[in-house]
Amino acid sequence: MKRVFVIGTGATKIGEHWDKSLRDLAVEALLAAVRDAGIDKREVQVLYVGNMMSGELQGQEHLGALVATWAGMAGVAAFKVEAACASGGAALHQAYLAAASGLYDCVAVVGVEKMTDALPNDVTSALLTAEDQEYVVFTGATFVGLNALAYRMYLSKYGVKQEDVARFAVHCHKMAVNNPYAQFRREVTLEEVMSSPLIADPIRLLECAPVGDGAAALVLCNEDFLKRSPRDVLVEVAGSAVATDILSVHERKDPLTMAGFRKAAGEAMKRAGIEASDVDVLEVHDAFTVLGILTLEALGYAPPGKGWQLVAEGELEPGGRIPTNTMGGLKARGHPVGGTGVYQVFDLVRQLRGEAGANQVEGAEIGLAQNLGGVAGTVAVHVMRRVR
Amino acid sequence: MKRVFVIGTGATKIGEHWDKSLRDLAVEALLAAVRDAGIDKREVQVLYVGNMMSGELQGQEHLGALVATWAGMAGVAAFKVEAACASGGAALHQAYLAAASGLYDCVAVVGVEKMTDALPNDVTSALLTAEDQEYVVFTGATFVGLNALAYRMYLSKYGVKQEDVARFAVHCHKMAVNNPYAQFRREVTLEEVMSSPLIADPIRLLECAPVGDGAAALVLCNEDFLKRSPRDVLVEVAGSAVATDILSVHERKDPLTMAGFRKAAGEAMKRAGIEASDVDVLEVHDAFTVLGILTLEALGYAPPGKGWQLVAEGELEPGGRIPTNTMGGLKARGHPVGGTGVYQVFDLVRQLRGEAGANQVEGAEIGLAQNLGGVAGTVAVHVMRRVR
Repeated sequence: MKRVFVIGTGATKIGEHWDKSLRDLAVEALLAAVRDAGIDKREVQVLYVGNMMSGELQGQEHLGALVATWAGMAGVAAFKVEAACASGGAALHQAYLAAASGLYDCVAVVGVEKMTDALPNDVTSALLTAEDQEYVVFTGATFVGLNALAYRMYLSKYGVKQEDVARFAVHCHKMAVNNPYAQFRREVTLEEVMSSPLIADPIRLLECAPVGDGAAALVLCNEDFLKRSPRDVLVEVAGSAVATDILSVHERKDPLTMAGFRKAAGEAMKRAGIEASDVDVLEVHDAFTVLGILTLEALGYAPPGKGWQLVAEGELEPGGRIPTNTMGGLKARGHPVGGTGVYQVFDLVRQLRGEAGANQVEGAEIGLAQNLGGVAGTVAVHVMRRVR
Repeated sequence: MKRVFVIGTGATKIGEHWDKSLRDLAVEALLAAVRDAGIDKREVQVLYVGNMMSGELQGQEHLGALVATWAGMAGVAAFKVEAACASGGAALHQAYLAAASGLYDCVAVVGVEKMTDALPNDVTSALLTAEDQEYVVFTGATFVGLNALAYRMYLSKYGVKQEDVARFAVHCHKMAVNNPYAQFRREVTLEEVMSSPLIADPIRLLECAPVGDGAAALVLCNEDFLKRSPRDVLVEVAGSAVATDILSVHERKDPLTMAGFRKAAGEAMKRAGIEASDVDVLEVHDAFTVLGILTLEALGYAPPGKGWQLVAEGELEPGGRIPTNTMGGLKARGHPVGGTGVYQVFDLVRQLRGEAGANQVEGAEIGLAQNLGGVAGTVAVHVMRRVR
């Protein structure tokens, strides 16, 4: 296998882009990444578009050819990759494989979602296509409802107070203040979170990732390309792994185990030759606060039921024990679904390159990103390492 | 790069499967391919699902985790790959890259579409998501309409009679009689084709691929896996390539050139070290008859405007100069959209293994499959070679 590196990054701000279509967002991020890489766009040989809901929300499939055409790159091999909310991470995994195989040596990936000019019921329905239509959605279950059941189980099993879990959202909003790409650049207090409307008991509005539009892109290359086009600063895709779990939570032995995440994280870290304790900066898929806490525990940063302590003690901030979601995470950076997995790695690369501004984690060399699809039915994990 | 081989094939019959859901079809084909490979399904490390319209027609995305779960393979890395009607070929390309990279050594791909229990208008709308919603679909154009324009242009430019193009459908129906997986196992006459209803002038109903349900699957492995699990009969993925063209036909310099196909076919044949004259059996994406003729000409089997002669002279039949769509093609085998690219290679492998029954092409060693998405906006080409 060829080693694979990130040589270009680009993104749009996340938010309500009433004046930009899905293609506009994707092309903007993609061309920004190409510019950042300092290459000619004709050097890109294959394009992966991570997206979940364009068919449902825009009546538009075939995003590979669409984005390639509108970016002036028609001719390249191009694909849409879908794995629910893990579509971005899944597309990045394909991009990694394409460059690692050696068949291609310069590859682009763009993760994109356009959610705000669809009717809210449409967005809710489209998100539910990630769950089993015939056996789960049919019952009336919603995503927030399914996560609420896991959240309730967690609080009950470990005797944790909701305030301690909800504080994860406070942390994310604090981090996003310094991220120019974030949807919500403002702090919230724990009191505001706990008094925000109840969405599905016990989940409060300010514990949920928002709806938004955005696109993030990366240009990857392998070692062959790098010989022709050397770099002073370089971040490697040190480990890339994807795993599934049994799709529906109610059929799993334990709804709190995150078996898919444990498998993907284990494989990605093994491929990178690292352990969780080596990670300098972490991106977790906090679609709901409890997922952030469960992830910290699954990675062994805290014992089961004690992940909240890391938040309370400020250990997730730059300078803390395990800086996490330093750009705001899904909660405050935003969660344009198919874009999220790419935004996470975009943010890790900024940290590893030392471009993270006020939230810079000093000396960060290794980052890990966790991207979940459905209720963690698909999990993509990427370990990124600064090599120079 | 590792060499990649097909060691298992499986498929459902194509047709109106009122009693089977999308997941049923996909799981049936996938497990059949695993049985054919003679492996334990737990040996499969990654699963690609080629599908275009499950979001629109079944309200179901996240097919990777869904199919993995219902096939009893939860845990594997799993993805949906979409490239309009080329979704199957696109998924196969990813499967090829996964095994060629060496990160995985046993990979499965299933192409599936479930079309008959959606309302016809839904199917038409869902198919149109392959074209540009904002600039083409908005005008009221349909797929058959866009192909009809190209068809009319072809007839006019070369002074060809429609009867000579339409005869391609007669050929496909004749071939499908001997294919137990085909949707239409009956012959049609040229008179029947020419007197069938006009769909979009000049295209007649019997010149169009039908709507149907079906799934086809392949198990691939690389040379490392093969060392542990040797085979007496073996077919290699000798060349795999995907290319895009400018998405919308009206923006291309020449609507009849098939630039994407020429690029993908050139790359796939170069990777396989063959020329078009080496191909023993051909699968073309004859969603409409004219596409079959254009493809024969693009590959150089006939001069522009003369492809129809190959059909008229029986050269597309087993024993002819270039046996084509020997199992019925899209027209008569059927066209479950996301499944088609995999069915094509499934049929090539049957030919190369000598399992093609009454339609066997004697001594066939090299096959080529062409899978088109949109109006050839994405093209996947696979060259398959029997190696023993």
